Amino acid sequence: MVKKIAVLGSTGSIGRSTLEVIEAFPERFQVVALTAGENIELLAKQAEKFKPLQVACKNEYLAEKLKPLLPEGIKLLHGKEGIMACARHPEVEIVVSALVGSAGLLPTMAAVEAGKTLALANKESLVMAGKLLFKKAQESGARVIPVDSEHSAIFQALHAGRPEDVNQIILTASGGPFRDTPKEVLSQVTPEQALKHPNWQMGPKITIDSATLMNKGLEVIEAHFLFKIPPEKIKVVIHPQSIVHSLVEFVDGSVIAQLGVPDMRVPIAYALSYPERLPLPFPKLDLVKASPLTFEEPDLEKFPCLALAYEALRLGGTAPAVLNAANEIAVEAFLEGRLRFDLIPVVVQKTLEQAQIKEPFSIDEVINADIFARIIAHQIIDELEKS
Amino acid sequence: MVKKIAVLGSTGSIGRSTLEVIEAFPERFQVVALTAGENIELLAKQAEKFKPLQVACKNEYLAEKLKPLLPEGIKLLHGKEGIMACARHPEVEIVVSALVGSAGLLPTMAAVEAGKTLALANKESLVMAGKLLFKKAQESGARVIPVDSEHSAIFQALHAGRPEDVNQIILTASGGPFRDTPKEVLSQVTPEQALKHPNWQMGPKITIDSATLMNKGLEVIEAHFLFKIPPEKIKVVIHPQSIVHSLVEFVDGSVIAQLGVPDMRVPIAYALSYPERLPLPFPKLDLVKASPLTFEEPDLEKFPCLALAYEALRLGGTAPAVLNAANEIAVEAFLEGRLRFDLIPVVVQKTLEQAQIKEPFSIDEVINADIFARIIAHQIIDELEKS
Repeated sequence: MVKKIAVLGSTGSIGRSTLEVIEAFPERFQVVALTAGENIELLAKQAEKFKPLQVACKNEYLAEKLKPLLPEGIKLLHGKEGIMACARHPEVEIVVSALVGSAGLLPTMAAVEAGKTLALANKESLVMAGKLLFKKAQESGARVIPVDSEHSAIFQALHAGRPEDVNQIILTASGGPFRDTPKEVLSQVTPEQALKHPNWQMGPKITIDSATLMNKGLEVIEAHFLFKIPPEKIKVVIHPQSIVHSLVEFVDGSVIAQLGVPDMRVPIAYALSYPERLPLPFPKLDLVKASPLTFEEPDLEKFPCLALAYEALRLGGTAPAVLNAANEIAVEAFLEGRLRFDLIPVVVQKTLEQAQIKEPFSIDEVINADIFARIIAHQIIDELEKS
Repeated sequence: MVKKIAVLGSTGSIGRSTLEVIEAFPERFQVVALTAGENIELLAKQAEKFKPLQVACKNEYLAEKLKPLLPEGIKLLHGKEGIMACARHPEVEIVVSALVGSAGLLPTMAAVEAGKTLALANKESLVMAGKLLFKKAQESGARVIPVDSEHSAIFQALHAGRPEDVNQIILTASGGPFRDTPKEVLSQVTPEQALKHPNWQMGPKITIDSATLMNKGLEVIEAHFLFKIPPEKIKVVIHPQSIVHSLVEFVDGSVIAQLGVPDMRVPIAYALSYPERLPLPFPKLDLVKASPLTFEEPDLEKFPCLALAYEALRLGGTAPAVLNAANEIAVEAFLEGRLRFDLIPVVVQKTLEQAQIKEPFSIDEVINADIFARIIAHQIIDELEKS
């Protein structure tokens, strides 16, 4: 039984890994739609190889450039509407949402509304609109399977017990490249240094988020919505080796963990094949070589982003969307050399303080909160630049 | 809904822990029957506290001494038949088989034949007659839930995937008290030294088996029968901290582990409450304090018992029963100061070589193999004493 798949964000890190998995199991999967932002050369190559029914790219200008590169017979769409059409394509069963940042929200919602199985790597859509997303999923019958290695680990570990017997979930964090860097030095770190993640090969945005621990903060929020667990039952522990991908503690004291080499293709394949597992031809974990496995408490003073994420979750409503928007703007400014690394959490905190937080009743309200937060964050960065 | 329980071997280490769990949840469990060997004082106290319908002890002589100590109205039985009657008691739903050694075989089989849910701590009954036991279980509808911490861990981890997607199971071993002892010194270790297990409080037989790694060998055999996994897919790794209780690797490279503090009450409670979990009031795992977790390859030259167990499993038939019987005799001789520690595997190996191995078609044939192996092992020990 061939599963038909749309990959949203196919030229990014998760998108490319998804296509590697699909390529290894041609008898299992068929690519129906691919979407990309600006990397139309790679999108064209992927279309050549996987023969989707349709593709979409960022805008009309890029679509015009893409057109002559595409094989014949592939429908070409563009823009937000084009990407959403790929998510909704009637032949698609599984939508892999591998878009980066808040741009993933609408296409992800489109997939959920269409009742697709959602393999979710775009954590921002859950952070921004987790409650609304699951409400829609309940209405449409869509199933959400996490692709993040941590949430995939928890999703797997939860099979060992009943939901009501969960005591807490424990997200592991590598600690990023500055785990052992003194707090005082963080003001001077460069984008180049911050982009060097010790264990995982990922895109630039998420790599910076790993360095600030905001990534783990977003994952705490994501876990809250995915697994319906209150914030006080979600714990973060630093695990520099990234072998234990996360853990679930049950009320009897049993802790179930998922381990493996750091390879995103494993949770991607799991999301595509669930509840089955595929015999992946990738390197397997050697426990003896991976030894020792160490665990530390996170340093919330050095990495305030993690505490801010918990704070946003406690505030509720649009606060997580505001946190996420401010963080996106701050990371962008940092990557462009306009903001110091240690000021990323300052921008986020000030934005959270200044933004109006309310309970959103529609995606439009979430998007408005996102837009306002971006404006506020820009202003704060401008002020910081002046001072 | 109160579950009615028989505890076979209630005065031993596992039996006492079982009663601690039951005591903590009086609204959940009711003790219907208790059996013990020689410790009739403790059995009487347990009967006083838990008010079972019947109890059994080793023989008529001890029963006569126990009689005046028992509260009124409790039926008193004795001997093999008495213990088996407790296992079969019509009101009993769950039989905890916590007997030590091959003495557990017949009562365990009685529980299985009566279609009870079997919480199995007596690994010898699986080692000796695993195939026959599961054949009977299939006929009677009995369910077998392991109590050994390692097998409980695997039983739990297996919930995260389909049986056909298991790639291998990885049993962890503490390595025992002589993990770092040079091979040459093993000839001189005393029973006192061998009885000091680094992590677990257990009875003397199993503690010596932990020191020789025979315990892990028996667990490999147990795992083979419990989970229907061929020997080549069962791996042993040394994990001195005894925090990761065992792991399952699936074909996709995902490894699911169960972790916790070393406390037998956790797997016992799980076996009693499965598929639910009880909110146990015992200390929980602190990953940061438990860090680092380390893993090493076992040294099969220093600990030949582990290799011998694999060999017995490959030989099949009565070979595991012979291995187990020879080991029981050798451990007894070591504890009595009649056999050197490093000669335990020698006795086992020679017994395996000299015994006739065949496919047993009944429990009687298994018991005969056990008796013959004991005679051979005794002879080998006598010869070793002379030389």
